[in-house]
Amino acid sequence: MSKYVYFFGGGKADGKAEDKNLLGGKGANLAEMVNIGIPVPPGFTLSTEVCTEFFKEGRKFPAGLEAQVNEALARVEGLLGKKFGDPSNPLLFSVRSGARASMPGMMDTVLNLGLNDEIAAGLAKKTGNDRFVWDAYRRFITMYSDIVLEVKKEHFEEELEAVRREVAQRKGIDIGKYNKEELKTVLPDSELGAEDFRKLVGVFKGIVQKHVGKPFPTDPRQQLWGAIGAVFGSWNNNRAKAYRKMYDIPESWGTACNVQSMVFGNLGDTSATGVAFTRDPSTGENVFYGEWLPNAQGEDVVAGIRTPFNVTKEAAAKSHPGTSLEEKMPKAFGVLRDIYLKLEKHYRDMMDIEFTIEDGTLYMLQCRVGKRTAAAAVRMAVEMADEGLITKQEAVMRVDPASLDQLLHPTLDPKAAKKFLAKGLPASPGAAVGVVVFSAHDAEKLAAAGKKAILVRIETSPEDIKGMEAAQGILTARGGMTSHAAVVARGMGKCCVAGCSALSIDYATQTMVVTVYDDSGKKVVEQASVKAGEWISIDGNTGKLYLGAIPTVDAQLSGNFGKLMTWADEVRVLKVRTNADTPHDAAKAREFGAEGIGLCRTEHMFFGPDRIAAVREMILSSTVEQRKKALDKLLPFQREDFIGIFKAMAGLPVTIRTLDPPLHEFLPTQAEHIKALAKELGVTIEDLERKNAELHEANPMLGHRGVRLAISWQEIAVMQFRAILEAAVEVEKQGVKAKPEVMIPFSLTKRELDIMKGVFDKVAEEVFAKAGRKIDVLYGTMIELPRAALMAHELAKTAQFFSFGTNDLTQTTCGLSRDDAGKFLPEYVAQGIFPKDPFQSLDTEGVGQLVEMACQKGRATRPDIKLGICGEHGGDPASIHFCQKVGLAYVSCSPFRVPIARLAAAQAAIAAKSQMKVASTH
Amino acid sequence: MSKYVYFFGGGKADGKAEDKNLLGGKGANLAEMVNIGIPVPPGFTLSTEVCTEFFKEGRKFPAGLEAQVNEALARVEGLLGKKFGDPSNPLLFSVRSGARASMPGMMDTVLNLGLNDEIAAGLAKKTGNDRFVWDAYRRFITMYSDIVLEVKKEHFEEELEAVRREVAQRKGIDIGKYNKEELKTVLPDSELGAEDFRKLVGVFKGIVQKHVGKPFPTDPRQQLWGAIGAVFGSWNNNRAKAYRKMYDIPESWGTACNVQSMVFGNLGDTSATGVAFTRDPSTGENVFYGEWLPNAQGEDVVAGIRTPFNVTKEAAAKSHPGTSLEEKMPKAFGVLRDIYLKLEKHYRDMMDIEFTIEDGTLYMLQCRVGKRTAAAAVRMAVEMADEGLITKQEAVMRVDPASLDQLLHPTLDPKAAKKFLAKGLPASPGAAVGVVVFSAHDAEKLAAAGKKAILVRIETSPEDIKGMEAAQGILTARGGMTSHAAVVARGMGKCCVAGCSALSIDYATQTMVVTVYDDSGKKVVEQASVKAGEWISIDGNTGKLYLGAIPTVDAQLSGNFGKLMTWADEVRVLKVRTNADTPHDAAKAREFGAEGIGLCRTEHMFFGPDRIAAVREMILSSTVEQRKKALDKLLPFQREDFIGIFKAMAGLPVTIRTLDPPLHEFLPTQAEHIKALAKELGVTIEDLERKNAELHEANPMLGHRGVRLAISWQEIAVMQFRAILEAAVEVEKQGVKAKPEVMIPFSLTKRELDIMKGVFDKVAEEVFAKAGRKIDVLYGTMIELPRAALMAHELAKTAQFFSFGTNDLTQTTCGLSRDDAGKFLPEYVAQGIFPKDPFQSLDTEGVGQLVEMACQKGRATRPDIKLGICGEHGGDPASIHFCQKVGLAYVSCSPFRVPIARLAAAQAAIAAKSQMKVASTH
Repeated sequence: MSKYVYFFGGGKADGKAEDKNLLGGKGANLAEMVNIGIPVPPGFTLSTEVCTEFFKEGRKFPAGLEAQVNEALARVEGLLGKKFGDPSNPLLFSVRSGARASMPGMMDTVLNLGLNDEIAAGLAKKTGNDRFVWDAYRRFITMYSDIVLEVKKEHFEEELEAVRREVAQRKGIDIGKYNKEELKTVLPDSELGAEDFRKLVGVFKGIVQKHVGKPFPTDPRQQLWGAIGAVFGSWNNNRAKAYRKMYDIPESWGTACNVQSMVFGNLGDTSATGVAFTRDPSTGENVFYGEWLPNAQGEDVVAGIRTPFNVTKEAAAKSHPGTSLEEKMPKAFGVLRDIYLKLEKHYRDMMDIEFTIEDGTLYMLQCRVGKRTAAAAVRMAVEMADEGLITKQEAVMRVDPASLDQLLHPTLDPKAAKKFLAKGLPASPGAAVGVVVFSAHDAEKLAAAGKKAILVRIETSPEDIKGMEAAQGILTARGGMTSHAAVVARGMGKCCVAGCSALSIDYATQTMVVTVYDDSGKKVVEQASVKAGEWISIDGNTGKLYLGAIPTVDAQLSGNFGKLMTWADEVRVLKVRTNADTPHDAAKAREFGAEGIGLCRTEHMFFGPDRIAAVREMILSSTVEQRKKALDKLLPFQREDFIGIFKAMAGLPVTIRTLDPPLHEFLPTQAEHIKALAKELGVTIEDLERKNAELHEANPMLGHRGVRLAISWQEIAVMQFRAILEAAVEVEKQGVKAKPEVMIPFSLTKRELDIMKGVFDKVAEEVFAKAGRKIDVLYGTMIELPRAALMAHELAKTAQFFSFGTNDLTQTTCGLSRDDAGKFLPEYVAQGIFPKDPFQSLDTEGVGQLVEMACQKGRATRPDIKLGICGEHGGDPASIHFCQKVGLAYVSCSPFRVPIARLAAAQAAIAAKSQMKVASTH
Repeated sequence: MSKYVYFFGGGKADGKAEDKNLLGGKGANLAEMVNIGIPVPPGFTLSTEVCTEFFKEGRKFPAGLEAQVNEALARVEGLLGKKFGDPSNPLLFSVRSGARASMPGMMDTVLNLGLNDEIAAGLAKKTGNDRFVWDAYRRFITMYSDIVLEVKKEHFEEELEAVRREVAQRKGIDIGKYNKEELKTVLPDSELGAEDFRKLVGVFKGIVQKHVGKPFPTDPRQQLWGAIGAVFGSWNNNRAKAYRKMYDIPESWGTACNVQSMVFGNLGDTSATGVAFTRDPSTGENVFYGEWLPNAQGEDVVAGIRTPFNVTKEAAAKSHPGTSLEEKMPKAFGVLRDIYLKLEKHYRDMMDIEFTIEDGTLYMLQCRVGKRTAAAAVRMAVEMADEGLITKQEAVMRVDPASLDQLLHPTLDPKAAKKFLAKGLPASPGAAVGVVVFSAHDAEKLAAAGKKAILVRIETSPEDIKGMEAAQGILTARGGMTSHAAVVARGMGKCCVAGCSALSIDYATQTMVVTVYDDSGKKVVEQASVKAGEWISIDGNTGKLYLGAIPTVDAQLSGNFGKLMTWADEVRVLKVRTNADTPHDAAKAREFGAEGIGLCRTEHMFFGPDRIAAVREMILSSTVEQRKKALDKLLPFQREDFIGIFKAMAGLPVTIRTLDPPLHEFLPTQAEHIKALAKELGVTIEDLERKNAELHEANPMLGHRGVRLAISWQEIAVMQFRAILEAAVEVEKQGVKAKPEVMIPFSLTKRELDIMKGVFDKVAEEVFAKAGRKIDVLYGTMIELPRAALMAHELAKTAQFFSFGTNDLTQTTCGLSRDDAGKFLPEYVAQGIFPKDPFQSLDTEGVGQLVEMACQKGRATRPDIKLGICGEHGGDPASIHFCQKVGLAYVSCSPFRVPIARLAAAQAAIAAKSQMKVASTH
């Protein structure tokens, strides 16, 4: 017969910490504490296998379970010298669920189980504490009825309130002045007496009889099995199902059920209860940090009705000297200190613990690895490694890479008052404060005058680049996490809130109307109108938008941060490059530790005010000669750009992508701009509009772009190739090594690569001949179309490297336009159709198949092919793990994500070696 | 040592018909004719391996070749009793290229090789025909100089013209009246005498000396090797390279070179030359069909200067009685008749033959399988099978399925005079004649008045459907082969010319300006302006547009056509369904042999004038209730549609796709329509424009469409499910079997299918409960996104069938928007980047991988999963072969392509069994 029940108590347990899958987190840790000699009230855990069986058999318990429960129960009775159901010496239990993963909010708990009228009377006699017993009894009926009998809590609360009002009236309190919640504070439960509770118990029983049609069960064993059934049943309640879906927890895991003998923190002034962390969870400082309440049960500490005291003397000294557990109950505190030190040493991590002191004796009720802020995680990891508690590699695994974003950017002061306006997507982290401007031009103007502006646009376009650079932050009404605004802002390390659909922007009146919703996000509370020039603040970490100027807190990169990064670099295998288009970004990325440029987008260089005219002249040319003339004007600019970038990267590889976007992106679309351009170029407005119409595309994402442009207008590619090569030659002449890698975007076939390779070789021959020196240049391609991945064995015949453009690859593989998907993608994620936004975290299941396939096929043709990723996913930790798995050489991401990528890459390397669980999946 | 030279002559040849790869088509067939006892002037073939060696060794001949040539030459001399280079009894040769595949236009030929002054004199003495000899000599110098010495033909033609003018003047002809070409007709070469040619020979030698710097070679062996080298060299001239690229002929094949002893049809009135087909190549009638000329060389028959006579008495009787070869040279004709009958029986196909009669003796110079019209191909195939010459399966293989299009639609009368205007894409076959209208509304108006209209639009949109139906044909200035106009027109079986970029359409002035180009397509010749109301004619088979009303010829589906189709159906494995959205199309498709509907697009049903209002009301609804109310109005319409379709298909499966396009496609975009709609719905224009802006998508192809709509607005799907099920119930109540298959478009994940399956099951339960009967319904999905193919193993858990939407799958896999790709795709095909337009013929190499993968993954999960294709490729023969290969159950195509698909499917089945070469790759 299977073992279903795992006993713990008396210094020995059937289970251990590693048995989480079988016993749940709570059960496993209780067993572990018992095993290492920590005082824990004895009890037993019904394993997750019982849960599985329970549902398999149509909510019936497996045969043999009852006997095992009885045996364990008898062992508890033996240890404690009390008897379950014996009025003369009663034993009470708590029954709690406890799943493998922490699932707060679905955990059903029944306390004080094993009471009936007779036993209550017996317990009162034994403890001499009537009030405690009837309080416990009424709490038990409420919890049990709610969870097991499905009688709503509100019914009991109404009666409790009635009693409270009676008592208040009796005490002369003007109850008319207070609402229900206020009354609880004015007259807490502690003010109610034994008689009040005894009366309530009677009333509560009536409520049960009325709603269930049967009396409240008086047999303790019947109560126990009812509670166990309810705990297992709760695994499949709607709340739990929704939670599992959200956090991707398999239904098959099941929950365990812990039955533990009760200890009471509310037996009087020698009793107490508390929660604590072995280190400060906000700062990470190595100080014991906890709160406690005398004469209270656990839920009182959390409920917030009574304000708990600090556990340590040092902490209490700052606010309420003399209230600490250390001072009030020094003996119990001494035990607690020994325990927490032992636990941290044993678990080798900061622990979150719950304790109860019953009549001077301390018991541990729970311990688990504690949650912490990003800053605390870094500090604890580094200090624990320095203390020798953990290894450096473990330290590296302890920090969630994504959380570093908080450390790298300024944040809105959490303590400042805020007037919330609306919520958009947290498109680029950080915080920004400035006055509203509705055009890139205005943003530039204000910046030039030394003023701070937030650029607010319906959506941004490449024409807005300079204004985005000038602004403190960017706010858009439309577009998703990978919209133009979001991508560019992340690239700049600039705060951006995108797709804030509550905004209705009117450029003509220079006003945005914000529709303000209530907390539920459903009801319109009011409409606020914000004009150009008014101050707003945006939070790129949360996507929230506030009225007024809120103070910000600067990023503080402590020494611990740098230390952790060094350790990360020691173990990681994946190189980390950056996506940078300017010498400035390149330099910034190197500061963050970038080891090369994985994506340099040449088109961004076309938008400078000194260049765009030549670009437009080139587009509007009707002959090759005209076009070449315009390109000749661009050549020196591009060459200078590359010289700057090569110098900034000083010998590190620089992957340069030839022109990618369709040409219409470079033409103005607004009437006034068209008019201005027509005048400038000496053409008619009609001509310009005809050109616009001619270049218009129904689906520009799938349009005439990338290598397709280069095939149609080879002279553009010729100019770019020449600029790259001449820049490299020039830089090397100056004694700096240049390592250009020329990358062809959007290719589908080997033939496209061959045609452009022919053009490239010809240009190279000319440039090298003229310069009298040669540069080593790699020639490769983006893999950003499914067909390119499918034909990778062919492409690799010509391409010396692949760079996965997973943004576009996701768009085409999934048929999702990142500019439009905002309309339904959040709903898709909410409904579990996608586990995550596939533009934020690589869809490894689908898109990942193509990436893996392309890696295999590419290597089959060219074993030493260089493989990397330059999509947005290059900075996403989960995606980086995938990149490590398929064996890429590097990931490339925006400068501000470089540290995140370095840490994630280190974790992926360690995980690959040791299958260790990583922090990001805590 | 390798065998390089293959001798033929004297009743025995080294090669045979099967040796095409080695000897080229011409050489292999010469050998075959010799082997079966047909009189052929002896000679020898230098194999394609020589060509390969020639280029491998830098244009040098392989060792040992010369000895083999000398030996073969000696054998020819021995057989004919003449000597190469012997003035007293000279032997002349022709030297011709001959590749594996017919490559007209690249075939370099040198005739009369082996002449010099001395030999010419000897030959004149021997034949007693001075004029013949000097004529042959000057022809030889011209050809040899052109091909071997690279002296341009024009130099020689100028001199010939000068002589012609001299002679004309001498004869008193007023040469001022005629231009060069006219003079050739007035004074043909036959009017020139021996002296004229002798003089020309002298002048020609001077031209060679001048351009080459060396005299014309007089050594016959030097001449021979020069010609052989030129023939092999021509394999890599630009003309040949371009041709090979166009027809996908590998460079590695190489050409063979045939050296054959000359016979002369121009030795006098007992000599003649001719070409013939063993059956009529235009009609397919089983009559010998040929043309001949007395006293002429082969090129004279083709050159068109002299009008040739009919070969048979019967044919000559109709125009020029008494001129036939049958009457003029009955003995030679008798030999020819025996030969052609023997050849057809031997080759079991209609043959194209060339013969020469030298002094009464007939020789065969060439034979090959003859080209034929589509009508002829059908008739010959069926009649040859009926005659027992070939099997039924061979008959099925003999007809190119794509050519059937010509038979199924009317065509412009080929004999009518035409005023060509411009050329667009042949988007939908057939011909149409009507007056120009520029709006769908006008087309409807004219149709209502019984008048014929051609709807001319920049591009069409779904709003134009009714007008397209009303028009005779459709002409658009923009859009490719799979643009809206093209797809809808093919679906309707209506003639369409799309993407005619020469058109500049101005709706305001109701005028289109046509820019007319010269033959090269480069120079603007004139600009024509066509106003609304003027007659035009369009040819959907060629894409050409003509001014005026050209008479049309109706499709004539002969009994042979039906017979061939029956034979095709006997062998084919793939089922053929149709894409049809109306009872009318469904009925038409059944006439063409459709075995079900593979794709019924429900959105087309939404555009009827009686429905579109409700659709728009639905879209503009702001609450679910409003939306449901609008949908309630649509329900009866949809139900009626489905009732009609189920009845038309009477028990055959009907696959119905739920709403697919993004909702903005249903809203008007033109200001006047917006105004009208706002008025109709009682909303403001601003509201409507805001809704338009809200629904606007940057890339609608990748937008909020397909199942994504159904997830967002389940009530739309509910309405459609209800309409399908209620219609099926109703039809079955009337005693007709209904076989609906519900198809979810654009799905990416199993979860999407599960959500919609839940909705479907609920509706079905309700409908069946109310009706008191159940209908068997299959539930499946389109596979039209790469991710769907990659995740097919998951989708197949819920989907009972897959239908490959290869249009969209091609768009996403290749990142090509079919609406936009017209700008570069033709260039891509021309440059060999794609072998064919991937929207016309499935990209089996790339997209095909996904189709094959999805089939395998789908079957792994659900072995009996039903697999089909409903993209445009379902009607493309090459794609159908692929479908057979991967084991699909059916293909689905527009009604007019059903016969094509049936034939192609039959050929695919036969090819799969026997690896036979199919007609479409002739």
